[in-house]
Order: sequence, then structure tokens, then C-alpha cells
Amino acid sequence: MKWVRVQTGEGIRWGYHLQDGRIQTVVGEPWGGFADQGAPVSASQVGLSVPVFPRKLIAIGRNYAKHAAERGNEVPAEPLFFLVSPTALIGDGEAIRLPNREDRIDHEAELAVVIGTGGKDISEENAWDHIFGYACAMDITNRVQQEKDGQFTRSKSYDTFKPIGPWIETDWQPSDRIIRLWVNQELKQEGSTSEMVHSIPRLIATVSAVFPLESGDVILTGTPDGVGPLAPGDNVEMEIEGLGRLSHPVVG
Amino acid sequence: MKWVRVQTGEGIRWGYHLQDGRIQTVVGEPWGGFADQGAPVSASQVGLSVPVFPRKLIAIGRNYAKHAAERGNEVPAEPLFFLVSPTALIGDGEAIRLPNREDRIDHEAELAVVIGTGGKDISEENAWDHIFGYACAMDITNRVQQEKDGQFTRSKSYDTFKPIGPWIETDWQPSDRIIRLWVNQELKQEGSTSEMVHSIPRLIATVSAVFPLESGDVILTGTPDGVGPLAPGDNVEMEIEGLGRLSHPVVG
Repeated sequence: MKWVRVQTGEGIRWGYHLQDGRIQTVVGEPWGGFADQGAPVSASQVGLSVPVFPRKLIAIGRNYAKHAAERGNEVPAEPLFFLVSPTALIGDGEAIRLPNREDRIDHEAELAVVIGTGGKDISEENAWDHIFGYACAMDITNRVQQEKDGQFTRSKSYDTFKPIGPWIETDWQPSDRIIRLWVNQELKQEGSTSEMVHSIPRLIATVSAVFPLESGDVILTGTPDGVGPLAPGDNVEMEIEGLGRLSHPVVG
Repeated sequence: MKWVRVQTGEGIRWGYHLQDGRIQTVVGEPWGGFADQGAPVSASQVGLSVPVFPRKLIAIGRNYAKHAAERGNEVPAEPLFFLVSPTALIGDGEAIRLPNREDRIDHEAELAVVIGTGGKDISEENAWDHIFGYACAMDITNRVQQEKDGQFTRSKSYDTFKPIGPWIETDWQPSDRIIRLWVNQELKQEGSTSEMVHSIPRLIATVSAVFPLESGDVILTGTPDGVGPLAPGDNVEMEIEGLGRLSHPVVG
């Protein structure tokens, strides 16, 4: 199923795509109990919100060897993770705004994992059972601030810096899937999820050994090599094989 | 007013302390509309939850010069901030658990600022209007992991690593207040909020220039010098002048 969040007169509701492309809204949450409500609507009729708005947006650093190398970093022996503000998330098509356009601000294409059933100390063996679904995501990063701060939170938490979507896909498996990103239709990043240094189960086990994962939490699993700067007027697009495509204008 | 969160049969409710020490629970939230509900209860009758459970728990690094120096760091020219998992928060009296007790795990006593009215791009001049209240807080930190990761999220996000309370105090002003912390009744940390490198309004302005602050968000404003290790069996206490006192057993 392809899950989205829909703006309705009664606030934001979850909904899922039907075969004909229309959206069936529900009451409840997809990882809890939910029930269809009302007639299906067309995506063009309703406003879509960001497809997930978690309490915790967890990002993994240096999880593809060639990307770590292009930034002059070693691959970490265990997953390196940090938190980014969930308020930076936007849905497909929304503009990416560059608030400090004199700085180098890079695109990073990533696979996002969305947690369904939360938990603490989740084993690698059980990790798959805690995944609700997957989405495409970009981890837009101000390189100047990243290097100045040392801490990665600020440079990655600006409003609009975390496109995610176009939906959360629950019927998909993430092994050996191609991730591609284009700027103005020129291919900039191309890698496979098979290149991840630390597997998705290992990421879930490592993070949940520190703090509980909650329903809706998002893990950004790291970017392949090929990262590069964005400028106002650019259009940045990404696709993960079988999962969907994001397209975003960049504005100053 | 001294605000707490109370466990009731209908879930967690906000409440405030009355003159006689009993607690009046309310419906609604203290920064929105709220109304008294039911008869006052005594604190010993009800279970208290952690007094605030934010979406974003923001921590400030190196905001007291003597603490930066004792850790061998420079004072940053602008506020250095990062995110910690809100799931690490606990209320007064709860045990602090050390999951990797072979590592050096330090106490840090801090003033916590709780946001009332959220906002983006808040000016230093308007910052005070966005503050709901204040609390004592400890920023327990695994030093070994902190140095290994570089990123501070993991070493500070373990369950129970962020005591906060004993309440959120709305009638208090934070200038030149003494912060003290004791381990087993021996004074370990003593400093004044007047020693902060970057003022509370500057912290709020800097953070909200990156992402919106939301009602209930918590900013930990940094620790004075005197940080040191905890061990199972210790009792750690802290007090901020006129604000309240926290007392926590440490377990392995």
C-alpha cells in the first residue's frame, strides 16, 4: 500500500492510494487500527501534507563507502547516527529553500525507513517486523555550517531540507535497489542499497539500543556518492527503483 | 505556577501546584486554553509523569567558559546546538540507569527552558515572550561514546539520561541564579546562570533561525564546570536557586 497524509476539513488524515490513483482516507493510523472513511478522492482535489511527521527523524552518517571517501571520511565501525528536526520534512513537489545561498548546500539522495511498531533493544533478527514502510528522501545539507559546527543537526535541519515521499510504500523490499538523483535532468548520484555499510536491521538494532523507536519515526539510511551543490532555479529529482520519485524546485 | 503532568485514569493530564501543595489537574494545555477539572489531589496520591514531553529536546554545547575549558574545548562564537531524544527525559526521583557502566558517564547540571508559544525566526527582543517556564535538568553523558562518535546525540540520548523538573516554574526569572549539583551530598558543580556565554534570548533566536520552536520544546542551556563521573549506588542531586531540586539514585 502507498500511504499519504491528506489535508481535510477535519485536519490531517491518513489515506492510501487505490488502484485507480484515487486516495481513500481513513480514521486512525496505518500502524494501529484504521477504518475507511468517506468516498475516495483524487489526489489533485485534495491537498497532500508531508506523508509522515515523526517525533524522531534519525539520520545515519557515512553509510556508503564511496560517499564517505568523497567527503574525506572513514567508514565508521558501527552506525553513526544523529537527530534532525522533523519540522524540516516536506512532501513531493514542494520547493526547497536555501536560506544561506552563499554557502555550499548539497543534495543527498537516501532511502527512508518508517517504523511501524515501536520498540527498545530490537534485535537485528526482529528488525524487519518493526518496519512500516519505505520512501525516497533527500538530506539537504549546508556544508559550511556542517564543518563549522562539527555537530550535524543545524546544517541539516532547516525548513524544507528533508523532502520525503511521494508516499510511504509498505509493499516493497529494499535489497539491491538503485537510488538515482538528477539536478536539472543531469544524473548526479547513482548507487545501490546493496552498498550500505551497515544494513537496515543493524541500523534499527543500533539506534534502538540507545532509545526506543516510536511508530512513525523515520530513519534516513545514508547517501551514495555524487553529492553536490544546489542553486536557486535548479530542479532536483530522485528515484528509488520500484519505490517512487520526488521532484523539487530549488528557490533562494 | 508550578506545572506537572499527572497520571490519571484518562491518561496523562497537566496539573499545577496549589498553595497547600496539592495538585489541580486541568483539561487542555498550559500554553493553550485550559480549565480546572475535578478536585485537587495530593502529589503522593497520584503518579507524576515527566513534567514535559516535547517533540524537540535541544541541547546547547559549551555555553559556560570554564566547562568548555575543563573539557579542552574553545567557546563557540555562536551557540552550538544539537538534538537529543526526548524519550531520555525522566521526572524527579526516578533512577538514572547506566547501560554501559564500564564507560565514564558524567553528570551535567543545567537550566532547562520550556517554550510556550512556538515560532520561527524569533528575535532576541521577543524571545522572552516565547518562554513558558523553567526547570532543573541534568544532561547525563557517556564521555567515551561522545568522543568516539563526534556527534553528541547517542551519548546523551539513553533512557533516563535527562532528568527534568521537579516542575515547570512559570514565575521565576533566570538571571544570575546559582546552579549546584552534589554526588552523595558532596558539592561537585557550582556556577551561575550569569556565566552563560550565549544568553537565553540568543539561544532562542539562533535555534529558531534554523527550525521552528513548538509549544513544549525544551532547550538545555549548557552546564557549568565541575562535571564528573557517576557510578551505580550514587545519589545525584541538583538545585537551581528559587527553582527547585532534583534527586536521583544511580543504578547499574
